[in-house]
Amino acid sequence: MKQFALKGNILFTPNKDEIKFFPNAYVICRRDTCCGIYMTLPDELRNINVIDYGDSLIVPGMTDLHIHAPQYSFRGMGMDCELLDWLNKYAFTEEAKYADTDYAARAYGIFADSMKRSATTRAVIFGTVHREATLILMDLMESAGIVSYVGKVNMDRNAPDDLRESSAAETLKFIRDSAQRKYHLTMPIITPRFIPGCSNSLLDELSEIRRAYDLPVQSHLSENPGEVELVKELMPEAEFYGDAYDRYGLFGREAKTVMAHCVYSSDSETKRIRKNGVWVAHCPNSNMNLASGIAPIRKYIDAGIRVGLGSDVAGGQTESIFRAITDAIQVSKLYWRYIDSSAKPLSFAESFYLATKGGGSFFGNAGSFEQGYEFDALVIDDSIIPHPQMLSLPERLERAIYIGLDKNGITAKYVRGKKIYAKITE
Amino acid sequence: MKQFALKGNILFTPNKDEIKFFPNAYVICRRDTCCGIYMTLPDELRNINVIDYGDSLIVPGMTDLHIHAPQYSFRGMGMDCELLDWLNKYAFTEEAKYADTDYAARAYGIFADSMKRSATTRAVIFGTVHREATLILMDLMESAGIVSYVGKVNMDRNAPDDLRESSAAETLKFIRDSAQRKYHLTMPIITPRFIPGCSNSLLDELSEIRRAYDLPVQSHLSENPGEVELVKELMPEAEFYGDAYDRYGLFGREAKTVMAHCVYSSDSETKRIRKNGVWVAHCPNSNMNLASGIAPIRKYIDAGIRVGLGSDVAGGQTESIFRAITDAIQVSKLYWRYIDSSAKPLSFAESFYLATKGGGSFFGNAGSFEQGYEFDALVIDDSIIPHPQMLSLPERLERAIYIGLDKNGITAKYVRGKKIYAKITE
Repeated sequence: MKQFALKGNILFTPNKDEIKFFPNAYVICRRDTCCGIYMTLPDELRNINVIDYGDSLIVPGMTDLHIHAPQYSFRGMGMDCELLDWLNKYAFTEEAKYADTDYAARAYGIFADSMKRSATTRAVIFGTVHREATLILMDLMESAGIVSYVGKVNMDRNAPDDLRESSAAETLKFIRDSAQRKYHLTMPIITPRFIPGCSNSLLDELSEIRRAYDLPVQSHLSENPGEVELVKELMPEAEFYGDAYDRYGLFGREAKTVMAHCVYSSDSETKRIRKNGVWVAHCPNSNMNLASGIAPIRKYIDAGIRVGLGSDVAGGQTESIFRAITDAIQVSKLYWRYIDSSAKPLSFAESFYLATKGGGSFFGNAGSFEQGYEFDALVIDDSIIPHPQMLSLPERLERAIYIGLDKNGITAKYVRGKKIYAKITE
Repeated sequence: MKQFALKGNILFTPNKDEIKFFPNAYVICRRDTCCGIYMTLPDELRNINVIDYGDSLIVPGMTDLHIHAPQYSFRGMGMDCELLDWLNKYAFTEEAKYADTDYAARAYGIFADSMKRSATTRAVIFGTVHREATLILMDLMESAGIVSYVGKVNMDRNAPDDLRESSAAETLKFIRDSAQRKYHLTMPIITPRFIPGCSNSLLDELSEIRRAYDLPVQSHLSENPGEVELVKELMPEAEFYGDAYDRYGLFGREAKTVMAHCVYSSDSETKRIRKNGVWVAHCPNSNMNLASGIAPIRKYIDAGIRVGLGSDVAGGQTESIFRAITDAIQVSKLYWRYIDSSAKPLSFAESFYLATKGGGSFFGNAGSFEQGYEFDALVIDDSIIPHPQMLSLPERLERAIYIGLDKNGITAKYVRGKKIYAKITE
C-alpha cells in the first residue's frame, strides 16, 4: 500500500480557535488519506518514504468555495460599478465568448494552470451557460489535479440573448456527458446563476435534474441591495431570497448547497441557512470591489452555520485564498467598527480555519491533518522572506499568509496524496 | 549632458481624472529630469541612447508617504488589537531592539533591500528614537537609491522607559550628524511620534529645531477614537488634535508637514489641514488591520487637500504601494456603502494619481512624466500574466496593480534618472 511522510513544520486548525503546530514533524499519508502526525517515526513506519521539506511550513490545502472560471481573464479590471451593472458590462460580455470552444480552451487553460499553482486544492466553480466549454473546463481541472465541482450555468432571463436558454435541456446533457468522462477529481454541480437570472420553470427543471442525479447546488444569495430588491419583485411569493431557492429544493436539506455572499441575509434567511445546512461562501474581496458590503460572518459562525471562503474571481481580483483569509479578517474589523460593535473581528486562526477545514467540509473530510482526512497539503518555503528576529511557527504562518507567499513561496502541493505541483526553486 | 530615452507603453496621470497613455513611445530623461514624451523621436534626439523595454508598461515611480522602517520586521503579524494596545504589545517591543546598532544594521538592511525592489521611489520614513540606528537607516536608504525623508522619532511620555527621552537633544545631534554625511537622496525630518507620546516641552524643543534648520515634519493624526480621546485629555487647550501640533508650528504653513491617517478629523481639523497645506498620508491597509476605520478621502480630495498613500508598515502588512492603490479604492467603496452615500468611491485613475503625483508632490515635482518632473520610473513586464483576450493599456495597468505585479513584474526602476534596480529575468 502506497504510503509516505512529509517532514517539516506542520500547522493546521482542528477547530476554529486553535492553530496546532508541530515543529520538525512527520505527517503520514496512506494512499490518499492522512494517518497522523509524529514527532519521531514509530518502528512500524521506520522504512517509510520521507520527503524532507526542511524548515518549510506544511499546511492543509485550501478550498475556494466560489470562483467563476470564465471571469479569470478579466480579474483586476473594470472595478467601477455595482453587481447588476457589472454583470452586464463585464461578466456577460466575457462569458458570451465561451460559445467558441477554441477561446474556451485557451482561456480555461490559463485558469487551470493558475489554479494548479495556487494555494487551492479544492474548488467549487462556475462555468458559463455553454455545455461544451464547461466540459473543456472539467477536462482541464481534472488534468490540473484539483478536486472540483464544476457547474454549467443556467440563465433564462435578465441576460443577453446569447447567454439565455429556453430550458435546462443542455444541463441534463451536460450531466450525462460529464458522467461519461469518468473523472476522478471533477464533479458536476447544479448552477442556477441567481434568482434574477432563472424563471420558476427553469428552477423547476433544475430541481428535477438535481434530484434525479443527486447533485449538489451552488448559487448566489443576498449579495447586493439592488439584487435583493429585484428578487422580491420577481418572486413575491418567496418569504426571502433564499426561500426562492428552497421552494425548488435547491437550498440545502437533502441537496448539498453552497451559497455565495450572504451579505444581506435577513434573520429569517439566516435561520433557514442554518436549518437547511447550507454552506456560506464568504467572498470579502469581491464584496469590496463591487461595493456590495460586508457579510456578518461572526454572526454566522456563532450560529453554527457552515462557512468557507471564496475568491469570487472576477468580482474578486485574485484566486489567492491566502488573500481571502486576510481580507476576511480586515473586513470583519470594519464591520465591528462601523456596523456592529458586538461582532468580534475574526482571529487569524478562525479565518485560516474557514479557508481549510471550513470550506473543505463541503468536500467531506478535507482541510485538516486529522486522522482520516483526505491528504491535501501545501509546502511553503518562507525562508525567501528574511527577518532579523526569531519567529514562532504561528507567527511565520501568519506572516506568510499576510504577505501573500502563495505567489512565490509554495514549493509543493499535494491533493489526495498526489503531488500535483512542485516549483523549480531558483 | 547625460540624456536617454525609455521606450515602451507609457502611462501616467497628469491629473486625478485621467490616465494618459502612449503606446510604444519614448519618454526622455535629461540628467535627472523628464523632458517630454514622443511617439517618434525628433531629429535633435535621433542619436539619443534608447533603452527599449518592448511591450512593457512604463509608469512614474511611487511615493510611500508613511512607513515605519523598524516595524518592517514584524509586518503581517500581531493583527489582533487596536492602535494603543498594538503599540505597547508589538511596536514598542520591536523598536526597543534598535538601541543595538548591530540589530539595526541587520534589520534595516532587509528593509532597504525590500524598498529597492518595491514600486516605491520616494518615501517618508519613521525610524526609532535612537539616533545611531536612524543614521544607519539613512546610510542604507542612500545606498538603496530611494529618495527619502527619514526621522528619528521623539517620545517622552506614554512609552516604555527604554524608548523615552528627556529632551530633544539627540534629535539636534541627529540633524547635525545627518548633515555631515552629505547625502544626495536622504533628508532628515522632524518626527514627533504623536501627541500622546510628546509633552508640550518636547514639542517646543522640536519646534525650535525645525525652525532653525527649516525642516519638514511628519506625524500621526486622528487615527483611532481612543487616541483622539487621549489627546483631548492630554492637551485640553487644543481645539482639536491637529491644533496640538499647530500650536507648536508643527502643522503645515511654513513647515512642510505630512500627517498619517486622518480617519477621525473633525470639520475644524479638516479645514485647518487644508488651510495649512498639510499633506494627508492615507493608509487604508493599516486602518483595516488596526480596526481604526476608513478615512474620508473623497471629502479631502474635494476640499483640495493634498493626499498621498502610505503603506504604514507594520500597521500595514506590506510595503506595496500597488496594494495601497487598490486598498484605497476598496475601502472607499465600503465608506460609500456604509458611512456616506454622497462620497463617491475612488476611481482607479484617482487612486493611481494619489500614489504617484499626489504623494510625489511632497517631494516637489515627482510622480509624473510631465516636462520638468524629476525622472522616477517603473518598468513593469506584465507579459508574465497570460490572458486570452486583447487588452487596452489602461486595462493592463489596472490589472497589473490589482494583481500586485510589483512583487515579480518590476524589471527596472529609475530614480532621478538613475537606474537603481534591474531584475534578472528568468
